[in-house]
Amino acid sequence: MNRVRFEGLPCSSVTSRRNIHLVERLIVDYRLRTQDDPRKVAETVAGEQSSGTFIATPGEDLALKERASATVERLEEVEDDATPVLPGSSGADRARSFRLRLSWPMSNLGPSIPNLLATVAGNLFELKGVAGLKIEDIHLPGSFKAAYPGPGFGIEGTRRLAGVASGPIVGTIVKPSVGLDPEGTASLVDALCEGGIDFVKDDELQADGPHCPFEDRLRAVMAVIDRHSDRLGRKVMYAVNLTGEIDEMLHRHDLVVEAGGTCVMVSLNSVGPTGLTALRRHSSLPIHAHRNGWGYLGRSPDNGWSYRAWHKIWRLAGADHMHVNGIANKFWEPDESVVVSAKACLEPLFADRPDRVMPVFSSGQTVMTAHPTFERLGADDLIFTAGGGIVAHPQGVAAGVRSLRDAWDAAVAGIPLGEAARNSAALAKAIETYG
Amino acid sequence: MNRVRFEGLPCSSVTSRRNIHLVERLIVDYRLRTQDDPRKVAETVAGEQSSGTFIATPGEDLALKERASATVERLEEVEDDATPVLPGSSGADRARSFRLRLSWPMSNLGPSIPNLLATVAGNLFELKGVAGLKIEDIHLPGSFKAAYPGPGFGIEGTRRLAGVASGPIVGTIVKPSVGLDPEGTASLVDALCEGGIDFVKDDELQADGPHCPFEDRLRAVMAVIDRHSDRLGRKVMYAVNLTGEIDEMLHRHDLVVEAGGTCVMVSLNSVGPTGLTALRRHSSLPIHAHRNGWGYLGRSPDNGWSYRAWHKIWRLAGADHMHVNGIANKFWEPDESVVVSAKACLEPLFADRPDRVMPVFSSGQTVMTAHPTFERLGADDLIFTAGGGIVAHPQGVAAGVRSLRDAWDAAVAGIPLGEAARNSAALAKAIETYG
Repeated sequence: MNRVRFEGLPCSSVTSRRNIHLVERLIVDYRLRTQDDPRKVAETVAGEQSSGTFIATPGEDLALKERASATVERLEEVEDDATPVLPGSSGADRARSFRLRLSWPMSNLGPSIPNLLATVAGNLFELKGVAGLKIEDIHLPGSFKAAYPGPGFGIEGTRRLAGVASGPIVGTIVKPSVGLDPEGTASLVDALCEGGIDFVKDDELQADGPHCPFEDRLRAVMAVIDRHSDRLGRKVMYAVNLTGEIDEMLHRHDLVVEAGGTCVMVSLNSVGPTGLTALRRHSSLPIHAHRNGWGYLGRSPDNGWSYRAWHKIWRLAGADHMHVNGIANKFWEPDESVVVSAKACLEPLFADRPDRVMPVFSSGQTVMTAHPTFERLGADDLIFTAGGGIVAHPQGVAAGVRSLRDAWDAAVAGIPLGEAARNSAALAKAIETYG
Repeated sequence: MNRVRFEGLPCSSVTSRRNIHLVERLIVDYRLRTQDDPRKVAETVAGEQSSGTFIATPGEDLALKERASATVERLEEVEDDATPVLPGSSGADRARSFRLRLSWPMSNLGPSIPNLLATVAGNLFELKGVAGLKIEDIHLPGSFKAAYPGPGFGIEGTRRLAGVASGPIVGTIVKPSVGLDPEGTASLVDALCEGGIDFVKDDELQADGPHCPFEDRLRAVMAVIDRHSDRLGRKVMYAVNLTGEIDEMLHRHDLVVEAGGTCVMVSLNSVGPTGLTALRRHSSLPIHAHRNGWGYLGRSPDNGWSYRAWHKIWRLAGADHMHVNGIANKFWEPDESVVVSAKACLEPLFADRPDRVMPVFSSGQTVMTAHPTFERLGADDLIFTAGGGIVAHPQGVAAGVRSLRDAWDAAVAGIPLGEAARNSAALAKAIETYG
């Protein structure tokens, strides 16, 4: 078999769907654990996801395999953490861990996200030889770039609409998550706008429940935002949660445009890939993408997705802001994992288009997490949302927002937090409160 | 708080979206593992998914909580299997397992599948107190029945279109999974129709790849099926894989209708919930729902979904046939788990509408698995797909199909397989081959 060499990524310059260059291949990295013969298992994974369970047709089998087989490009042993394996795992050896790279001919699937998913994340997790499998990375060939628009706004577009030219976009989440009616929500947003916030988002639990219908909430909140926009010289960006069926989402998007809104929010796992694509193709606003449910995809050390691989699907489909959790978050996730996710958002998907997206930091964020976030991320292109870190500031919401900006200014300028607090009463009080 | 009693399911008879009866609640069963205080963790899960991270607003908090809180309805200890816990789990106790039942007021979310998912499968898997969490069952309140049509064909409609009044619908999957062109696929289907098959499906890897475009494959295969239909007195049902973006799927669906096809197939995890809903609302054909990727959702013993809970989402959205793997399958899954899944498909979602769906058995199915399948399932309302179990029959495809029908007839009639083989040369040879 003529194996194509892959130094860097094999991006074809041919973009027509029906004429994908024959050498274009999709490359995916996995971490595989097995108690069985690793080479055999790797070949089984590749076979299951291409022409593997082949019953020979005389004269045709070799040419067909040449054309359609997935190829094991790399199988490299790495340290195994000796934790128990997935149930039903075959083989009697101790579990071993491998970096496995597979490639597929793009002529099998075409540049289609749904069919990409069936190919790289289909039945392979259920194979007996697999004692553990994580999708670590997906290297998207160039034909995907032609087929999907990617983020419509990304970092620059979001900054422009939010009126925040540099530094983090400081935001908060409407709390309680659910239970406020439209007027209650608007009243809370009023206090936040008064306090100088850049960005407000709905909770993922609040979309169009009977107690707080989407349209009523949108109108009530946008009236408040409009009222503050002259004084602020910008419109507070409100990521209104339009998660629903496709027709509902497109209709709600249009209502947001009509109402002068500048952002929409959607729960990715709730709508699925085709839902996000449909929204993106219709949308004229940045799409704030919520990852709720990510735990059932990513928390198991031996099954599922890495954030790096998973988030690429949604960026390709059109997300502009991607949730990444936060440093010192209230969830299980270690800081290192959060930083890796956020850095992935700041890398381009394709070298020659501006498709970097805003990582969204949330969960337990306060003035205390600004310095470590900046130090570890090395960038301030992010949305930094704090709940209690703003509204529980003893001097009020305005001081809460002020303290976060001061903390971030200090972080970016390389001034220690304590030193910066000498010139900011709001920051000093925040350190006392959250430190 | 006035806690509603739940004996059976709390189905309200009120169906209007905006006027959901105030007592209607959504009930969900989880299996929770924790190393922490179980009552506290259960309350945290309920709180995280409703009005939990509440910062009190004077005079409003109690009424709001009364209205919007999720409630811990049951927390009952069960045996723990003492396997390691998910990373980042808090608490120093040994892990304990619990049946946890939560309920939510439907006024929080309304009868919306996407928002149901954010509510019952949102950020809760990431909580530190959670050492393991599986969604075991979702009890859908009546307002969902009004909001979603469910399966359009189910068991009876599928039988009618396939021309198979009783017994299993005997089928096969186009193999190799991927690599045949439209003519190659049609030629294989020709042999299968010649052999008397009831049902043929595409592989999930084959949708609209450049090497085997959807439209060309559809036309080539339907020409073959039409040619055989007079002789057979029925149209072989071809579940053609239309997985793609929404507009592509709706267009392909219309092409299938135009070509006289009787079924469409879709990969659920590839399109997501809103994609399936959009397809269902447009479709005039049964929807064959493929679960590829299920492994990353269901194989971890301590994270993710049970099939019972997960499959309800797709049935509600409109799937007619649901894959359940097979007895003695080639994957990791034990038979008991397969049987539980298949039985779930045969239970109604709502008592008063015909919404049972066809379980689809596949993976390593042969004449040897007919008896155990019937004995354990107690029903023959199913699609029984065999690959090698048909095409590798030494006497050819027709004998392969014949042997499966004879095995199933015997199973349903209570005749042992060996005894039935005395009157069927095809079955005798199949037992020799696969036994």
